[in-house]
Order: sequence, then structure tokens, then C-alpha cells
Amino acid sequence: MRIDVKDTAALLAGLDNVLILTHANPDGDTLGCGFALCRALLRMGKKVRVACSDEIPKKYEYMFQGMDMPEFEPEHIIAVDVADTKLIGRTLKEYKERIELCIDHHASNLLYAPKTLLDAEAGAAAEIIYQVIQELNVPFDKGMADCIYTGLSTDTGCFRYANATARTYRIAAEMIDIGADSAEINRIMFETKSKAYVRLEKMAMDTLELYFNDTCAVITLTQEMYHSSGLQDNESEGIAALPRQIEGVVVGVTLRERAEGGYKASVRTHAPVDASLICQQMGGGGHARAAGCQIKDTLENAKKMILSNIQKALEGTL
Amino acid sequence: MRIDVKDTAALLAGLDNVLILTHANPDGDTLGCGFALCRALLRMGKKVRVACSDEIPKKYEYMFQGMDMPEFEPEHIIAVDVADTKLIGRTLKEYKERIELCIDHHASNLLYAPKTLLDAEAGAAAEIIYQVIQELNVPFDKGMADCIYTGLSTDTGCFRYANATARTYRIAAEMIDIGADSAEINRIMFETKSKAYVRLEKMAMDTLELYFNDTCAVITLTQEMYHSSGLQDNESEGIAALPRQIEGVVVGVTLRERAEGGYKASVRTHAPVDASLICQQMGGGGHARAAGCQIKDTLENAKKMILSNIQKALEGTL
Repeated sequence: MRIDVKDTAALLAGLDNVLILTHANPDGDTLGCGFALCRALLRMGKKVRVACSDEIPKKYEYMFQGMDMPEFEPEHIIAVDVADTKLIGRTLKEYKERIELCIDHHASNLLYAPKTLLDAEAGAAAEIIYQVIQELNVPFDKGMADCIYTGLSTDTGCFRYANATARTYRIAAEMIDIGADSAEINRIMFETKSKAYVRLEKMAMDTLELYFNDTCAVITLTQEMYHSSGLQDNESEGIAALPRQIEGVVVGVTLRERAEGGYKASVRTHAPVDASLICQQMGGGGHARAAGCQIKDTLENAKKMILSNIQKALEGTL
Repeated sequence: MRIDVKDTAALLAGLDNVLILTHANPDGDTLGCGFALCRALLRMGKKVRVACSDEIPKKYEYMFQGMDMPEFEPEHIIAVDVADTKLIGRTLKEYKERIELCIDHHASNLLYAPKTLLDAEAGAAAEIIYQVIQELNVPFDKGMADCIYTGLSTDTGCFRYANATARTYRIAAEMIDIGADSAEINRIMFETKSKAYVRLEKMAMDTLELYFNDTCAVITLTQEMYHSSGLQDNESEGIAALPRQIEGVVVGVTLRERAEGGYKASVRTHAPVDASLICQQMGGGGHARAAGCQIKDTLENAKKMILSNIQKALEGTL
């Protein structure tokens, strides 16, 4: 059942011993939502804590610094920014079936929870959490403001993409007024590359190939590059943005070799080319401008297959 | 004389045949200010046009598309986002002494104009122009909104840096409501690199050197690299941001060889290191986090000199 912000706040007000689940391979939005809501419910005197299947990267530590999350036996389970219970991850799978409430902004949300607050117009799930906290009548503090701002900024590429609406900017302004360290958060999220990342980025750009009159750019990351750069596979997400940034390119592809063989393709497009449609041909999916798929084949065949689908997309025959 | 927004609007309301000067080597803020104000004054039935000493790069063309700027003999000259008449540029130097009003946000403004509206707290000069247009009682249209948004976004690194305040975000929200194509503007300004730029960026990163326990990163661009990449010197500004982005680096230096010999150094720092103080030792200057200087010497000597000053800055003995 879909519920609104008012009902969600009323529901939350009546709960105690709440476990908030974020998605695995956590990002700034799921963590921002989790810790902002946790801080608000703690303020209301409840027992609450946030859980994530994967270790939370060090750069997000400020979100829960100085927080006192009590140990308790969870009675109520809620999920934030989680479109599908598959994304909860391995170590928390015992809670999958027990999720009572989900707060999310993915149009693809499977409505797996008995109650779901879903707003697919929200650039970040943090926009929805902001409204819920307002409805709970908990005054925002700096800790919550940092968390909400992080969600807004990270899910919109620092207010760069079309999903950042006037509402996103207005909530950000309010969070800055309350004390969110916007510049420092953006420095950590967008202005900091590890040396290993810089090495891998350089190797990646050395593999750049252009196709179809330079409207399609492909870069390839191999397991050997991960080893020699020292970067982990899951830290290389940002590199997928590079090929599409080249002037004239409308389809950017990043092929990442998987440890178990085969390739993960990340496709980024400019309008009107539909990345999701391209990836669907190969069993994947996603959004119109950003999608992905897995190809269990050699590099040569993987490229051939994806390029043939891209050619059709560019010709409008997909 | 410093004047306020109200006085500025009253002054502008009384003028006709107005020439608006932007700074040479134009950026999104000076052009955004120029064309937004021009559009507002045209709406009031005045003869106005914008002038720039250098050719306006194609990417900014949307700002004046569909605008009808009449030819006329300028009676009144105003300058926007111009801290010093030196920045007006060669082809407009005849107007330098005739500037009646300057609207700017640089703390370093020389107050060269008889009347100056200066707000050094504004992240972009476009924030001030927004207030002036409001005070003029001209309703904002999409054209003005695109111009104002461009100024806000480009001067704050897409709302990334500390100069983007809550006010900056709120004005951006209003411009989006009016119809500013925020995502498209940001795509053009921040998500588009020419092939030549990508080539030069790669060459630049190949020259990366780290000093002082990896807290200082230096990259070097030579004339030979400009030639072989095909990029012009004045298109390589963005590269100066790269060295400071490396994790642990607090001082990033970009040395660019000048056609006439010697090097231009761009210094970017993280707090508390003062980039301006470092560059002042070598006859340059700028802001606390971004400054520059010219060094007329060999690469080896230029590096030696700047590194010795950086070492002192890091040790707190500058």
C-alpha cells in the first residue's frame, strides 16, 4: 500500500525499537536518509539504529559521529532508498521479510513493503526524509542537516543533473541555514580522488575508443588494471561518467572486467538516446540516461554486442 | 562611492543608450550578468547592448539567442563582474575611463567607477544582478533565468564551493521555477570536455609529481603539449583543479609554460594553507584557496622557487 508523508510520520511516531535498513554498497543518499531519520527518532526518545550490509566507507563517518545508537532487539524494520529487497545485502537478509515500511524515490520500487512512501519525482530520497522529519515536528539540527544535504548533493551529482529540482535546491538552502557543512561535504564527495583512483582513471582513458563518427565512446577496465592501480572494483563507479563527458559523444560505455569473468557494462547517454533500452537488449536495465548490464563473454564479443545495440539506438531502430 | 541595490536600480531606470561591459576572457558569471541585465533593460524599452573584448565562446551562445541588441552610440557605460579596468581588455579600452557604474562581487574591486554596487558575500555577481532586476520591477523570463542561473552555477563550481550560500541556492531555485534549463546549462559547463582537452588532461596527469609527504602535487603543461593536443592555452583553466583533488594533497600547483617563455603558476589549496600568501611571495595574488603568479625562469628554477614557498607555507613560517 502506498501511503503519504502524513501517514508515514504518524506510523513512525507510534513505533519503538526501530531498525533502519540502508541498501548494500551504500551511497550518500541511503546513508543520509538512514542517519537523518535515526537522529530524528532518537530525539523523540526512541530506540533506533541504522544497519548496512556492507562496511560504511570512512568518508561517510561524519554522518554518525557523536551519535549514540543503542543496542536492542529490533521490533520494527524500515528501509530507506531501497527499491528491491535484493539490495538489502547478505548480512541483513534475515530482516528482508520483516520490512514494514519503505521510504524511497526509485520509480522501479517493487512495493515489497506493506507500506511504502514513494515519490519518484524526488531527486534524492533525502527530500522525502526531510518532509517526514518536518511532519514529525522534530527540529532539524546540524547533524540531520549534514545527512540530508549529503543525500541531496550526492544523488544529483552536486545539483548538476535534471533530477535536482527547485525543491531540491530549496531544501539544500534550508539545510545550509541550519548549519550543514555544504562545502566540506562536497569536497569529500566530489573533490577527493585517491591516488589509486587517479592511476586507474589514467589507465582507463588510455583505452578510450570512439565509434560511429565519434558519437560513442568506450573505455575498458580490466582486472589487471585494478590490481596494478590498487583500486577496488566497487570504488571505480565514478569512472563511468567519463566517456559521456567528451564533446560530441551521446553514448558513453564503460566495460569493467569482473573477477569471475565476463564484463559489467555501464551505459551513460545524452537525450534522446535511451540507455535503459540499450541495456535491456542484454538483460540489464536502469534509467533513461544511466543503465547497466552484465555480458558473460570475451571482451571482443562484449564490445561487438553492445556496439551493435548502440548503433541501432543511434539509428532509432532499437 | 559605494551605492546599494535600490540606488543602483534608480540610477539604471534613468539611463538610456547603455553599453554593458563584461571582462575579457569572459566566463559564465560576467556574461550571465551582462545578458540578464541587458534583457531586463531592453524589457524596459531602453537601448542596451553587451560588449566583450574577446570573442564569446560558442558554449555561451544560448544566453543571447533570439535577443535583439540594437546598434547605437553609447551614452552610458556600466561594467559587471569587473574588479579592475585592466580586465576590460584591449578592444574596449576606449570605454575604460567612461564607466559610470560597476556591479561586482570581488572583494578586490578597485572602486574605479564613480558608483559601485559591491557585495563580496555574493558567490556570483549574478546574485547581485538578480536583486537589481527585482528592484527594477522587471518580471524574470526564461532568458534572464538562464543567464542568472549560469552565473550562479559557474562561479560556485556548480554549487560545490563555500561561496555558494543558502541565498545562492534559493535564487537558483527561483530561476528553475521560471524555466532555467539547469541540467542542460550544467551539461554544457561541467560535463563537456573537448577531445583536445581530454588529450591535454592525460598528458598533464602524466607529469604529476608529489612532494612533502604527498601533501603537495605539481603538474606541468608545456607549449609542446598545447600544440600536440590541439588545445589553446586559455581553454586549459579547468586543469588547475586536478592536483588538489588528490586525496591528502593540500596544495595543488599547475605550471603552464607561456608562449613568450616562463611559467604561469596556478595554486589551489585546502584550508588552512593560504594560496594567495604563497603567490604574493612571487609577485602574484588571488584568493585564499585559489591564486596565481608568473615566474620568468626555467621550469627547474620555477619549481624550486614555488616549492620552497610552499614548504614554508606548510610549516607555517611564510
